[in-house]
Amino acid sequence: MKFQNCINYLLTISQHEVFQNFFARLSPMGITPGQYGVLNYLWEKGPTTPKEIARYLRLENSTISGVLDRMQRRGLIDRVVDPNNRRSILVVAMPAAQAIKDDVLKTVDELNLEILQDFTPEEKEVLMKALCRIGRIEDEEPNENRGRP
Amino acid sequence: MKFQNCINYLLTISQHEVFQNFFARLSPMGITPGQYGVLNYLWEKGPTTPKEIARYLRLENSTISGVLDRMQRRGLIDRVVDPNNRRSILVVAMPAAQAIKDDVLKTVDELNLEILQDFTPEEKEVLMKALCRIGRIEDEEPNENRGRP
Repeated sequence: MKFQNCINYLLTISQHEVFQNFFARLSPMGITPGQYGVLNYLWEKGPTTPKEIARYLRLENSTISGVLDRMQRRGLIDRVVDPNNRRSILVVAMPAAQAIKDDVLKTVDELNLEILQDFTPEEKEVLMKALCRIGRIEDEEPNENRGRP
Repeated sequence: MKFQNCINYLLTISQHEVFQNFFARLSPMGITPGQYGVLNYLWEKGPTTPKEIARYLRLENSTISGVLDRMQRRGLIDRVVDPNNRRSILVVAMPAAQAIKDDVLKTVDELNLEILQDFTPEEKEVLMKALCRIGRIEDEEPNENRGRP
């Protein structure tokens, strides 16, 4: 098969290119693209469980532990007991995260604009929707409706 | 930013989903998606240098060494001296690769059809072209025109 026609090749190469770009531009703020993913979730939806963050980022529970450990050591997040369920742990964003929030969000907005600057609005919409479908990414319900009986 | 609008998130998640699918379906044939990438290059273009394969797969030279070592131990490829340039090494596909070629190519074709089955031809074209552009993937010249003065 001509490799330009293989969806796995195209996604792997384009993901690599974009990830490197995000990595380079976020590192001056002291975070990785994955850590941005964690913070963005917390900023958008508020405190949540490590399991829910792992689900959102498609990481193994063991992998997300390491990510959260590093972020906790840097003071970006903390793990607290859920006041509504004392057997459950919630991840919360800390002041050190708040301190970089504006810069991080501005940088991510800029990166998205730059990477997609050559596309028409129609092409952009087809692309984003296609990636959501391929990645089985759904419009999310609010956090508080998840994982409750 | 709403994470469904972040190109890095969309690419990372959709790449993960598709890669897992390729991984599961290629493993009965004893190869990984990355090893398929190497073989596909050799099948399409013939013998080439490790450096050229690394460029095509966007891998570090040190990473491609490990991939080729594993493939060589399994008898899928060999490294031979370039008859036209005795200081250069070429990677060649071996009979063990030829033996799985039809199955591998059929599986990859099926995977591409399955993953893209819900898209119209127009959507598919926009998607593939967009990923090529984002990944800076160009139509490749024939192998023999590369890396020669």
